[in-house]
Amino acid sequence: MDFLEEPIPGVGTYDDFNTIDWVREKSRDRDRHREITNKSKESTWALIHSVSDAFSGWLLMLLIGLLSGSLAGLIDISAHWMTDLKEGICTGGFWFNHEHCCWNSKHVTFEDRDKCPEWNSWSQLIISTDQGAFAYIVNYFMYVLWALLFAFLAVSLVKAFAPYACGSGIPEIKTILSGFIIRGYLGKWTLVIKTITLVLAVSSGLSLGKEGPLVHVACCCGNILCHCFNKYRKNEAKRREVLSAAAAAGVSVAFGAPIGGVLFSLEEVSYYFPLKTLWRSFFAALVAAFTLRSINPFGNSRLVLFYVEFHTPWHLFELVPFIVLGIFGGLWGALFIRTNIAWCRKRKTTQLGKYPVVEVLIVTAITAILAFPNEYTRMSTSELISELFNDCGLLDSSKLCDYENHFNTSKGGELPDRPAGNGVYSAMWQLALTLILKIVITIFTFGMKIPSGLFIPSMAVGAIAGRLLGVGMEQLAYYHHDWGIFNSWCSQGADCITPGLYAMVGAAACLGGVTRMTVSLVVIMFELTGGLEYIVPLMAAAMTSKWVADALGREGIYDAHIRLNGYPFLEAKEEFAHKTLAMDVMKPRRNDPLLTVLTQDSMTVEDVETIISETTYSGFPVVVSRESQRLVGFVLRRDLIISIENARKKQDGVVSTSIIYFTEHSPPMPPYTPPTLKLRNILDLSPFTVTDLTPMEIVVDIFRKLGLRQCLVTHNGRLLGIITKKDVLKHIAQMANQDPDSILFN
Amino acid sequence: MDFLEEPIPGVGTYDDFNTIDWVREKSRDRDRHREITNKSKESTWALIHSVSDAFSGWLLMLLIGLLSGSLAGLIDISAHWMTDLKEGICTGGFWFNHEHCCWNSKHVTFEDRDKCPEWNSWSQLIISTDQGAFAYIVNYFMYVLWALLFAFLAVSLVKAFAPYACGSGIPEIKTILSGFIIRGYLGKWTLVIKTITLVLAVSSGLSLGKEGPLVHVACCCGNILCHCFNKYRKNEAKRREVLSAAAAAGVSVAFGAPIGGVLFSLEEVSYYFPLKTLWRSFFAALVAAFTLRSINPFGNSRLVLFYVEFHTPWHLFELVPFIVLGIFGGLWGALFIRTNIAWCRKRKTTQLGKYPVVEVLIVTAITAILAFPNEYTRMSTSELISELFNDCGLLDSSKLCDYENHFNTSKGGELPDRPAGNGVYSAMWQLALTLILKIVITIFTFGMKIPSGLFIPSMAVGAIAGRLLGVGMEQLAYYHHDWGIFNSWCSQGADCITPGLYAMVGAAACLGGVTRMTVSLVVIMFELTGGLEYIVPLMAAAMTSKWVADALGREGIYDAHIRLNGYPFLEAKEEFAHKTLAMDVMKPRRNDPLLTVLTQDSMTVEDVETIISETTYSGFPVVVSRESQRLVGFVLRRDLIISIENARKKQDGVVSTSIIYFTEHSPPMPPYTPPTLKLRNILDLSPFTVTDLTPMEIVVDIFRKLGLRQCLVTHNGRLLGIITKKDVLKHIAQMANQDPDSILFN
Repeated sequence: MDFLEEPIPGVGTYDDFNTIDWVREKSRDRDRHREITNKSKESTWALIHSVSDAFSGWLLMLLIGLLSGSLAGLIDISAHWMTDLKEGICTGGFWFNHEHCCWNSKHVTFEDRDKCPEWNSWSQLIISTDQGAFAYIVNYFMYVLWALLFAFLAVSLVKAFAPYACGSGIPEIKTILSGFIIRGYLGKWTLVIKTITLVLAVSSGLSLGKEGPLVHVACCCGNILCHCFNKYRKNEAKRREVLSAAAAAGVSVAFGAPIGGVLFSLEEVSYYFPLKTLWRSFFAALVAAFTLRSINPFGNSRLVLFYVEFHTPWHLFELVPFIVLGIFGGLWGALFIRTNIAWCRKRKTTQLGKYPVVEVLIVTAITAILAFPNEYTRMSTSELISELFNDCGLLDSSKLCDYENHFNTSKGGELPDRPAGNGVYSAMWQLALTLILKIVITIFTFGMKIPSGLFIPSMAVGAIAGRLLGVGMEQLAYYHHDWGIFNSWCSQGADCITPGLYAMVGAAACLGGVTRMTVSLVVIMFELTGGLEYIVPLMAAAMTSKWVADALGREGIYDAHIRLNGYPFLEAKEEFAHKTLAMDVMKPRRNDPLLTVLTQDSMTVEDVETIISETTYSGFPVVVSRESQRLVGFVLRRDLIISIENARKKQDGVVSTSIIYFTEHSPPMPPYTPPTLKLRNILDLSPFTVTDLTPMEIVVDIFRKLGLRQCLVTHNGRLLGIITKKDVLKHIAQMANQDPDSILFN
Repeated sequence: MDFLEEPIPGVGTYDDFNTIDWVREKSRDRDRHREITNKSKESTWALIHSVSDAFSGWLLMLLIGLLSGSLAGLIDISAHWMTDLKEGICTGGFWFNHEHCCWNSKHVTFEDRDKCPEWNSWSQLIISTDQGAFAYIVNYFMYVLWALLFAFLAVSLVKAFAPYACGSGIPEIKTILSGFIIRGYLGKWTLVIKTITLVLAVSSGLSLGKEGPLVHVACCCGNILCHCFNKYRKNEAKRREVLSAAAAAGVSVAFGAPIGGVLFSLEEVSYYFPLKTLWRSFFAALVAAFTLRSINPFGNSRLVLFYVEFHTPWHLFELVPFIVLGIFGGLWGALFIRTNIAWCRKRKTTQLGKYPVVEVLIVTAITAILAFPNEYTRMSTSELISELFNDCGLLDSSKLCDYENHFNTSKGGELPDRPAGNGVYSAMWQLALTLILKIVITIFTFGMKIPSGLFIPSMAVGAIAGRLLGVGMEQLAYYHHDWGIFNSWCSQGADCITPGLYAMVGAAACLGGVTRMTVSLVVIMFELTGGLEYIVPLMAAAMTSKWVADALGREGIYDAHIRLNGYPFLEAKEEFAHKTLAMDVMKPRRNDPLLTVLTQDSMTVEDVETIISETTYSGFPVVVSRESQRLVGFVLRRDLIISIENARKKQDGVVSTSIIYFTEHSPPMPPYTPPTLKLRNILDLSPFTVTDLTPMEIVVDIFRKLGLRQCLVTHNGRLLGIITKKDVLKHIAQMANQDPDSILFN
């Protein structure tokens, strides 16, 4: 009668928008592994299978690295080209961007690298001139037109083909990694549409970055590649290990910072991160970074997005302005999160959310119209950051480096602090305007129905603020080097202050304020500069920024969006600080009807089917008898339904009056009774239990660390109730004075 | 009668060589935190207290960084001076080491930096000449004499004052961090003696390093500084968070690699590492590194121990020799672990272990006698590594850089591959001898009763092997640049191969083979070179080395020593792969007498005292009644003894016939019965339970992740048995075919 030896298809899988049971998934993987290891002693073929199984993880990492690195390169190149398309086109070959166009030109001097006859602005093409007000208007018009076209394409594609492709994706990935199922979120359609629309969104000139979405793209790659390996396809826990590594690869290609990427995945994204995964993630991140470098999208064979090299050490006193930048970053982070969440809530609850295309077009139009007249808003945000980080050399021709040159270089190539020229002053004004625009427009941009990352806009805000402060300090030090605070370390004609470093510190502070990253932030920044020298300023700013922002609101932007969307995410970093007990949280509550249980050897198929149809619980405890309430095990609703259906179909004679046995042996039955149904194999014989007096802080800890879905509550050995992950989340929300019904899913 | 509101002193503490209960400690910290937060609303003073409590962690980190950085600086400077003392003394001031002595000299040329009249070798001082065979013998004799003196002092001090100061300390720190108590292991005597004897041991020229012991020193600092803060002094779990950070600071000062240090702590040492600790560890590591730098023990204001800068990129084909080095590293690691453990076991079990002083003196004598004639063994091991890592420049005068100079530098300062001169050939021979000596002598050195680290000797072995291979490859490429494997990328007169890089890769491979570090190893090495360029070779070698070594033996050297010493360490990285159940592991076994339990309301003080005196269990489950076996809670032996003693002393009338109540309310007693003893407050009302059919893999996971000490086993709601951490460890040892009684402690 033990017809259920072979697993029934469907038993052990999950429905969409459900939480996985980590313990069960990990057990299944260990069973699989054990089986392969045992078999491997039998034949050579099985041995090869076992070895290939062991190495499949590494192969998968290699493939993820290669694929996400290539996609990142592709995105970089296309975004670069399309951004330039807004300004003009290359007649030497329309597929060249501005820089490549002029590289290939023979008519170009070093000073005017950007101007070559092959590159034609739209006014040159249309009205054959680049001068005058009319040409300016033509260029302005074309710029806005292209921006609108790109944005329209992006939002339409997202809306039509892959609604999951919008946003940065990091809040959802965090939720998925914590053990939630969102089918299609990391699917191939999402990958294709996100890649295309990301390029369009970035090129449209909106205040958004491609770094966050790149993490989503890399995770899609990871998820899709998992399908090639049995080990990962069938196991939700193992697949999440791969996704953690893919997230690391995503950040690695976004910034060219493999170590920072791994730490980002560890600190910010991942939930369950065994050390084995750390090593593999590092491998994937490294492969991705080197794939990107060999594609060489920036044309400078640099690994990193913003390569900077500073020459001057910093002085201890400078920690004061760095901490000021930290405070600014923290304030901005807290302000941004609050206003952005308020705006997103408005979008969710009012008519606004029904017209995503119109919303995107309006924001794009406003951004483009305000951006074009100011060169710092017109250029792409990553170019802007790159320029702000830059330490002015002797040959730099940009406005930001337009100092009055006294040609008295202090020693060996070092440039002393110099008075600012007109260019610097006008750049300051333009940067201040840019700062205001970026601050305001980013609030409305993040959360629209297009792929949009936050890293770059946050860094831009910080970098502008930092550069402004840095130039201010530099001029102060130049004109007042006799002041007490300067004269000990900054004599006349010395190079004391590096405004580029201030920009970098500011960028770190703002990014930290928004995302509340800590170690990974500092390491990413360290990988950009490559010098341990500058870690202390970065750390000081990041620490201050986090403290200030935390004081004004505990959540980072990703957690805030998770809560806004009601995802069932159990935060691993926050301690549960209230003194409630398991009995306060469990179902049934004091006045509720009794807990629905099954008995191990006295219920008929019909009884069970009635219970299934009358309740919506996803699982039922099985007890010895209703009187004793002694717990035997736990059975999942889905498994129960599938098994009964299957038994009715296949097994002769199982009818509604058949008795279901969860015991090991069913007693001998008198003749002419209907055959019994044995379901011990779908019974979880090791359900987790806690006593009713267990403090909730320990229960929360158990849920987090073991990745439980539910936990049974006993009192003196008798079953009393059940706590699900949803109950825990609702309780946490309630304790934080939030609406417990904002947790939407199971 | 509720006289036990105030906690009795002693309740909630642990005996020496016992395992802590992480859940209880963390609960206690949360209670403390909750109390402070609640009070903070009452008065300004309480608010200040609350804020200072929140920041005390950061202050502690700062102090740990400062103290361990200073100690590391002190150790570096003294070790340097004493190492040079073996060769001679500075007449310009005996406190100068060789290098400083000649820096202050006016009679010194750039080529002969090392020779100045102020520095006198012992033969110059004693027989007034430095030439001839007799002077050589005098110097030889003095060298051996000083080495023996240092070693004798080191081993005597360790033996007399702090036996815990010997070895590297990392296995014990791992065990302590996993929740074990070894009183005095991180105490002030250990700190003082370890610092002094570490200098002596390093100076004696034995084949050992100071990096591992520096971790121990930093952890001692952390532990001692914890005593200044209530929050950390009284809580074993919180203190372990601090120790994790201190370990990071230790590695950070050892290599000047703060990020690598944090990752080392995370990957190798720590057990429970919340993300909050990651950030704090990073801070401590950074402060320590910068404190060390400001002391500037190497006199070059470099942060790192081995600063290297390579100029030539590597070629894809070179991955082949790098992987060969990886294989060598893995083989050496596995061989070293096996032989070293065998030798240490012999020391433990035979007469050998009874004469530690003699053993140290013999090994020192052999090392010194064999080392003096060969300049590469005579110099300190870290100097040797530094020289091997070095890329030969034009001005390098060392033998390793004695190439035949053709003076046709290829382009801009780059040196092409050149044929090796006589110096290089003789250096190769000497290095080969050094390699053999190091390989053999290190096996006998590690584990002696003096402070001894493994990092430096392992790296030296790898660096020598790497340099030998590197020079070989270089000569091959020079003489056979027309070979197919070379001609595509290595034309004549080009600088293709950097032997220093090979040395570095070899060092990483050997270190990886011995310690099985992965990410932290690569990051430490990356921080030494500072270029992402060379991560790929390092990673290839580290991966190969780990695979090869793992294939020959699963354990790293630290885990092997933990097992050798029988520490109760539950490895977090290894999966438990066997299909046993909780009922196979729990006590009592099938034929044992029943589980010793207390009942909640029917036992007298005398009954309980009998049970305590007749058994040695560290805790007892409390049940409703012996018949029902329904579990109420768990009480610890230590708490029970203290409470009963205390009640007998203080509470009037508690006598042997008093009934102990673990219930919430004791029933009204008839008059003239002895007063009852209420002990509910020492009862753990939320003991962890699993069912008897729970797979052991899940039980092991629970023990690991929650840091349990014991777990109760039930069957259908009835108490059946108990599993302690020791049972789990014994079971794991048994399953791995090891002697389960090798687990010594509770």
